Amino acid sequence: MKDLSEQMQLAEELGRRAHAASQKLAKSGAEHLNEALGLIAAALHSRRDQILKANEADVSSAKKEGLSSALVDRLVLNSARWDGLLESVGKVAALPSVLGTVIREWTRPNGLRIQKVRVPIGVIAIFYEARPNVTVDAAVLCIKAGNAVILRGGREAFRTNTVLVEAIRDGLDKAGLPSDTVQLVPTVEREMVPLLCRLDRWINLVIPRGGKRLVETVVENARMAVLKHAEGICHVYVHKDADLAMAQEILVNAKCQRPSVCNAMETLLVDEELACGKLRELLQPLREAGVEIRGDPLALKYGGPGILPATEEDWSTEYLDLILSVRVVPGLDGAIEHIEQYGSHHSDAIVTNNAEAAERFLREVDSAVVYWNASTRFTDGGEFGFGTEIGISTGKFHARGPMGLEDLCSYKYCVIGRGTVRT
Amino acid sequence: MKDLSEQMQLAEELGRRAHAASQKLAKSGAEHLNEALGLIAAALHSRRDQILKANEADVSSAKKEGLSSALVDRLVLNSARWDGLLESVGKVAALPSVLGTVIREWTRPNGLRIQKVRVPIGVIAIFYEARPNVTVDAAVLCIKAGNAVILRGGREAFRTNTVLVEAIRDGLDKAGLPSDTVQLVPTVEREMVPLLCRLDRWINLVIPRGGKRLVETVVENARMAVLKHAEGICHVYVHKDADLAMAQEILVNAKCQRPSVCNAMETLLVDEELACGKLRELLQPLREAGVEIRGDPLALKYGGPGILPATEEDWSTEYLDLILSVRVVPGLDGAIEHIEQYGSHHSDAIVTNNAEAAERFLREVDSAVVYWNASTRFTDGGEFGFGTEIGISTGKFHARGPMGLEDLCSYKYCVIGRGTVRT
Repeated sequence: MKDLSEQMQLAEELGRRAHAASQKLAKSGAEHLNEALGLIAAALHSRRDQILKANEADVSSAKKEGLSSALVDRLVLNSARWDGLLESVGKVAALPSVLGTVIREWTRPNGLRIQKVRVPIGVIAIFYEARPNVTVDAAVLCIKAGNAVILRGGREAFRTNTVLVEAIRDGLDKAGLPSDTVQLVPTVEREMVPLLCRLDRWINLVIPRGGKRLVETVVENARMAVLKHAEGICHVYVHKDADLAMAQEILVNAKCQRPSVCNAMETLLVDEELACGKLRELLQPLREAGVEIRGDPLALKYGGPGILPATEEDWSTEYLDLILSVRVVPGLDGAIEHIEQYGSHHSDAIVTNNAEAAERFLREVDSAVVYWNASTRFTDGGEFGFGTEIGISTGKFHARGPMGLEDLCSYKYCVIGRGTVRT
Repeated sequence: MKDLSEQMQLAEELGRRAHAASQKLAKSGAEHLNEALGLIAAALHSRRDQILKANEADVSSAKKEGLSSALVDRLVLNSARWDGLLESVGKVAALPSVLGTVIREWTRPNGLRIQKVRVPIGVIAIFYEARPNVTVDAAVLCIKAGNAVILRGGREAFRTNTVLVEAIRDGLDKAGLPSDTVQLVPTVEREMVPLLCRLDRWINLVIPRGGKRLVETVVENARMAVLKHAEGICHVYVHKDADLAMAQEILVNAKCQRPSVCNAMETLLVDEELACGKLRELLQPLREAGVEIRGDPLALKYGGPGILPATEEDWSTEYLDLILSVRVVPGLDGAIEHIEQYGSHHSDAIVTNNAEAAERFLREVDSAVVYWNASTRFTDGGEFGFGTEIGISTGKFHARGPMGLEDLCSYKYCVIGRGTVRT
């Protein structure tokens, strides 16, 4: 245990080092950064056994501490996920570089040539859940975009993250880049979060990924920009003109394919016109998949046996588990209102064959990603074609939805004259 | 005088009304918004005399209170500026609408079609100097981008702003849009700024324009996103390979054309190699324009008579007046280091005929706008071709440099499938 002044000193030191690294990084070319990604992949590869062993230790402690199965699932780094993790480093390296690219260029009537050029943001701090793949994804995306990064993952993954970051720093070092480009906060103490949030002198951006409490702490304390990755209360709305079989397939996918992640469905909204005859049938595949269903009075009435009554709290709960709340709504307006009141502006879908209803839903639902006849599970940088992602922004500022490489950059204007003055 | 709980209630009420207006606005088409801009221009036009009279009263009080001539200059709304103000409403109306436009569109291998669509941010609060034109520019840009806005200008312009906003609300009302789309904070009490900064429930973005103290208050208190329009400590660096006549013309323009604004030059950096023979000649036109010059020891040595010694404080002072600090630097690296240490990441220029030096300066100086052979006075939305501007961002997040219409928007992703699920 460190006392507060020691922690403050530690935070300051992390910030100072990251800033110094970012200044060196800003002068490195895109090729050099890509070379580093290759060396990082190699360094990770050569420590595979050590990393998986550290993960086993983390998983075993987490189980002993009684962590929910959904959260343990996020923590596990098995063989298949390890391959996915290394693959995503390769994918990021293969992405076209964004740094120094001219976003737009134009010439003014007075002859001034203006170029809008992409540049790094500087130093980014990321606070995230106990998911080891995020450690690697965040680090390589930040490096590719020319930023230094300070990482703080959930404490349950501390052993795994420690060895992952050692490997990453080793790769940076071999590439001749400052190893302080990637730093793991070397303690799990909670106070480090608000302390780092005060350091706008060194840190340009904070990305909190995780629960309400973490996001609230960051919003309350941060002096720099914040990209919120808040919870995902995602809805699927089955409209009266939906294809029932399509709806069933989307619901099972949105709820069951990986219930522990933020783009999984938490609430199903069903048109009363459809619900009164078909709700029981609609829910059948979810029942068979073992989903616990909590319904409003009309869902209890139409949905068949085994539905528990939903409480007011259910509508704003991110279960992250095989639990689903179901509400029968009078129509499109009712669905949009429910999502406005209880949603988290993350991902919401409509299932319908009615184009007019779909277009209104897409326009009026104020969420980062709105879907028509597709599962909410696609809200993901990889699925969007960004290579990988650093998180999903549920705010409306700078970046919204899955954040990829371009979202980790700023820009500057380069203006070229010929002795041009303003008249 | 209102007590704190009355002010809190007032802030809450402003936020709630703005949010309600923004929700109605989000459903209005681009044509409707443009129609409103026309009616606002007409409403302003019909109240010209009343507005100029209110401005005369503001100017006369400000002079009595001993406001500096530079600040009085910002406050004045004379006939010429009035025409410019009305013209800028027309310019914004004439700009192509950005709302609902598809920024990017692509189809994934699984057939999912993804559209990135521009949408309003929601509610924006702007705190700014006593400059009446900003009231109008900010209001019409926010409306065009589909946002509601809460305005708080410098207290010296309160009478002018009150009648300006009355006219704007009248125009909105005539267009059938909520007049609460534009609200002026109806009191000049300072506490309103931190109070509004807490209301992230209603307000999505705060833009502080002005001095260090205002920006610091906002950064310290804001729970929502902040676009800083901080001070402009702008530099012109005259490189050894500069054309002397071109440099003279740029220096006079950057310092004297309108010294009271943020993109005016505050510090001149001169290469020693050039300074030792030519500094006196270089400074001559500035002297003739009545500029007070404060120099470092080498500037005192080479610059000729009448130069005052600069103190350490001068390098980080935004004079906003006919005062200039001058420093002789050993070369390009010295210039870049000085700007990194004392600049405000606003606008910095190099004057040189050496392309290699210019390119290094443009790449390595970390400012919103970097110039080669042009005056810093071009950092302005109008000069950039944006129609007008809502401010100049000195941060690196969401928007940097002059902020126009697009910078007042967010986006959402609309994803269209055919029953598409994730495998």
